[in-house]
Amino acid sequence: MQPLPRSRKETKGSRTKIHVNDLVIGDDFLVIAGPCAVESEAQIMEAAFAVKQAGANMLRGGAFKPRSSPYSFQGLGEKALQYLKQAGQRVGLPVITEVMDPRDVALVSAYADVLQIGSRNMQNFSLLMEVGRTQKPVMLKRGLCATMEEWLASAEYIMKEGNPNVILCERGIRSIETYTRNTLDVSAIAAIKELTHLPIVSDPSHATGRTELVPPMALSSIMAGCDGLMIEVHPSPCDALCDEKQQLTPKQFAALMIDVNETLALRKQMRRYHPEKTQDEVKL
Amino acid sequence: MQPLPRSRKETKGSRTKIHVNDLVIGDDFLVIAGPCAVESEAQIMEAAFAVKQAGANMLRGGAFKPRSSPYSFQGLGEKALQYLKQAGQRVGLPVITEVMDPRDVALVSAYADVLQIGSRNMQNFSLLMEVGRTQKPVMLKRGLCATMEEWLASAEYIMKEGNPNVILCERGIRSIETYTRNTLDVSAIAAIKELTHLPIVSDPSHATGRTELVPPMALSSIMAGCDGLMIEVHPSPCDALCDEKQQLTPKQFAALMIDVNETLALRKQMRRYHPEKTQDEVKL
Amino acid sequence: MQPLPRSRKETKGSRTKIHVNDLVIGDDFLVIAGPCAVESEAQIMEAAFAVKQAGANMLRGGAFKPRSSPYSFQGLGEKALQYLKQAGQRVGLPVITEVMDPRDVALVSAYADVLQIGSRNMQNFSLLMEVGRTQKPVMLKRGLCATMEEWLASAEYIMKEGNPNVILCERGIRSIETYTRNTLDVSAIAAIKELTHLPIVSDPSHATGRTELVPPMALSSIMAGCDGLMIEVHPSPCDALCDEKQQLTPKQFAALMIDVNETLALRKQMRRYHPEKTQDEVKL
Amino acid sequence: MQPLPRSRKETKGSRTKIHVNDLVIGDDFLVIAGPCAVESEAQIMEAAFAVKQAGANMLRGGAFKPRSSPYSFQGLGEKALQYLKQAGQRVGLPVITEVMDPRDVALVSAYADVLQIGSRNMQNFSLLMEVGRTQKPVMLKRGLCATMEEWLASAEYIMKEGNPNVILCERGIRSIETYTRNTLDVSAIAAIKELTHLPIVSDPSHATGRTELVPPMALSSIMAGCDGLMIEVHPSPCDALCDEKQQLTPKQFAALMIDVNETLALRKQMRRYHPEKTQDEVKL
Repeated sequence: MQPLPRSRKETKGSRTKIHVNDLVIGDDFLVIAGPCAVESEAQIMEAAFAVKQAGANMLRGGAFKPRSSPYSFQGLGEKALQYLKQAGQRVGLPVITEVMDPRDVALVSAYADVLQIGSRNMQNFSLLMEVGRTQKPVMLKRGLCATMEEWLASAEYIMKEGNPNVILCERGIRSIETYTRNTLDVSAIAAIKELTHLPIVSDPSHATGRTELVPPMALSSIMAGCDGLMIEVHPSPCDALCDEKQQLTPKQFAALMIDVNETLALRKQMRRYHPEKTQDEVKL
Repeated sequence: MQPLPRSRKETKGSRTKIHVNDLVIGDDFLVIAGPCAVESEAQIMEAAFAVKQAGANMLRGGAFKPRSSPYSFQGLGEKALQYLKQAGQRVGLPVITEVMDPRDVALVSAYADVLQIGSRNMQNFSLLMEVGRTQKPVMLKRGLCATMEEWLASAEYIMKEGNPNVILCERGIRSIETYTRNTLDVSAIAAIKELTHLPIVSDPSHATGRTELVPPMALSSIMAGCDGLMIEVHPSPCDALCDEKQQLTPKQFAALMIDVNETLALRKQMRRYHPEKTQDEVKL
Repeated sequence: MQPLPRSRKETKGSRTKIHVNDLVIGDDFLVIAGPCAVESEAQIMEAAFAVKQAGANMLRGGAFKPRSSPYSFQGLGEKALQYLKQAGQRVGLPVITEVMDPRDVALVSAYADVLQIGSRNMQNFSLLMEVGRTQKPVMLKRGLCATMEEWLASAEYIMKEGNPNVILCERGIRSIETYTRNTLDVSAIAAIKELTHLPIVSDPSHATGRTELVPPMALSSIMAGCDGLMIEVHPSPCDALCDEKQQLTPKQFAALMIDVNETLALRKQMRRYHPEKTQDEVKL
Repeated sequence: MQPLPRSRKETKGSRTKIHVNDLVIGDDFLVIAGPCAVESEAQIMEAAFAVKQAGANMLRGGAFKPRSSPYSFQGLGEKALQYLKQAGQRVGLPVITEVMDPRDVALVSAYADVLQIGSRNMQNFSLLMEVGRTQKPVMLKRGLCATMEEWLASAEYIMKEGNPNVILCERGIRSIETYTRNTLDVSAIAAIKELTHLPIVSDPSHATGRTELVPPMALSSIMAGCDGLMIEVHPSPCDALCDEKQQLTPKQFAALMIDVNETLALRKQMRRYHPEKTQDEVKL
């Protein structure tokens, strides 16, 4: 095992709490929702109203899109950052968006409340160190074939530079199954809570790549102990410029949120998931 | 996609129900519990009383153990079958045990209520055909690196011989993560219900290989839509002859069953999981 | 690491030699060639003449075919065994064919000079023990996602029953690359020779699934140190009942054999591969 | 398949040739050798003399080291670049070294003849675009679990910015086998030559992680058709600050070079590998 002096559970007496405006990630269940990419001022505004109304407490939207091919849509860049921030302010939601280049950290930080590091950049150490030099909360997605140990070692790159506000995000690993886009490693959610004090969010949209699997995987992730969800929601998924098969409609998202809340209510009653208990106290 | 004339969802108007004594798998939530291996008459009897009391409705225990090495404990064979059946009858539980050899199908069928086909034998076609010639319910575990498509094609081998009573069992696939023994493919549980009318059971014990991850993965699997669970329970896990790190104590299992029942109660209320709805009706 | 008392290199002072008629596997480079499946008396006879003429020293042809789907061609069974043996005798080549069922071991042994255990059955322990009770040479293919350690543990099942004549066969593992059918683990060929005294054959046909990649992978395998090759050759690949995209024509196979022989001649001169040196002496 | 307008084979009538000083990569077989990391002026100078004498035609040495953990040795930075260039000039070898940060491209370009993009940065698109804006040759390593298609799509990022001088480097993928550090995908070497006109180098050192497997995998790669090799050589591997188990001694490297040259001589005679033939002409 790599040395994990800053992220491992034993380092702190309690779980990490991250403040974003009024939100306390780690206490409040985080629901990030919004489109894969910011496509226009109208699209992100419409998405923002819809996800806010359904109960999301953070808005997402890609401005810089990491795409396998340079010939795919790359995002609208700074203009998207402006639209995103404006939409978030309008509906009263903090916003999260991806930063891909260490030279863009200051720019993106000027608009975003939380910085997202994508899967492909989980071991882009220059970028990790750069976001580590800010105090912005950082959501670090797990690499496509990274072990939990490597993932936490990447979190250490951020924390070592002085930024303790790291949120992990499980978004599926590449496996032998090809029916789903990736394989959501639900057990990593439960396991990581034994290893680290950092909060963890589950992203069933990218993991499954299929609308119909997003709701059951969201609820599964809750029962595995996640501290939040990231769900792709688009006003009109069929017209989306990317990831059209995995984005929920606002109506689907609203229906899911009812189930999410019921599942959370149940989880809170369970001794196993009591927030004030340490992992050892609640262990069977 | 392979042709799946017998197992694919569209073949039947409804989901498969399998009768085992008074139990109706597909309607009643199946909870299989018991030790990895039958080690003695006393051990399996003690386990049987414990799991029955905690609410299991089927007893498991290996008589023929498929072990990677020929120098590991191979199971007690027919003697174990006798102990298992006797324990099941004593506490009023049907029993399931693995059959590894086509020549043993008649023997194992004389004792077991459900025949288990292990992961390593998912593509042992002679064995599949042999159990297909009985009318005993068969629980078919997914291979260590089998796709869902290959898994269902194996179910077809059983069904083609005349036995429609196939239960699928997700038990984890081999992935790049080594912290867990395998990676429980929870999304396969949700996905398979879109593909087939056969019931599916989740085995978090073999999937995770770690006691502390069994409960969260059991509850996650329920939210993904599974029709049952298979949980390894041993009167004294530390003394177990195999898989000692993944077997729950009776006390741990009893605690887990409380959470299982609460989660099932919640699931039943959810429109998404209504048993009389087809998958299409409940889709968001 | 599993205990490998019979297969590990240190057990014997020298590498295992296996006699099949005049052939000494381990000394003589083994070239197994022939069609995926025996399809007719004429087809296997034509293939036998062609591969013999090009320099193969063993004839292959499937009689019992393990297919993912029960609705695919399953092989001609005993009739195929007769055709295969007859073709081998006619051209003077020993024959190898797969056995899938422990109940067929006596039958297949009556016709075959070498028994093949397929990938899907690498951990079919009943079958391994049954072939272990004969003295027929057994070629044990590596499982689709088996580690070298598990593969050798399976060889131990055969050897423990009294049959030391085990030949390993690397045929590709399932990986994240989907362009090739599987990923030929060429480094396993070199590594296994450090671990065991058993001979190893490479099967580039099943590994790549693509005709154009068979020759370079055959030559690569030689340089990695393999003791033989298994190449699928069909008189008319386009008409083949299975695996049509990976079978060479007789003309292609004859061309390949020229390169194989030149590569072997070079290898023999290299100090690294000197047959009388132990692995330690030739190590750099 | 992604669109690959610049890298796919059909785009050009001939294979790409890349000039580095007197060297013509694509015509001349490239042998890159040197230590994992530049550790001192003396160490890289000693390595340079040794690899030059043994026949290498390019010197490697890491200045910026991408390490999973921030607590591991990170390289000597610019000082290492100076030592590397100086050593290369002294012995008359061009040098290659990794660049990890888009902001370092100008700096590294001032010292290096070829820029290396490491595995972890294969999809660091900002970095790819930045090196694409230079005319320096770029060696693009395959990601740990990238498909060939994704790898070529990353090459397109570099080429689209105006730099056609891309060299691919196969360095092993992560698979289920853990005995070797990674699994060298030798068949990808043969396959990629069917897909692209770009040259490809094999790195058996990182792929296997084991000294004893480097020579057989180097020779295997030649037979698969690679255009070059990258071999880690350290004056005193036991004292190396990283990757100590995979670096050859100068003596081992010199011995390997004899075999490399003999294998290349054989390959040149083979019709299959004739440099002036297109892949289609030489196909069997």
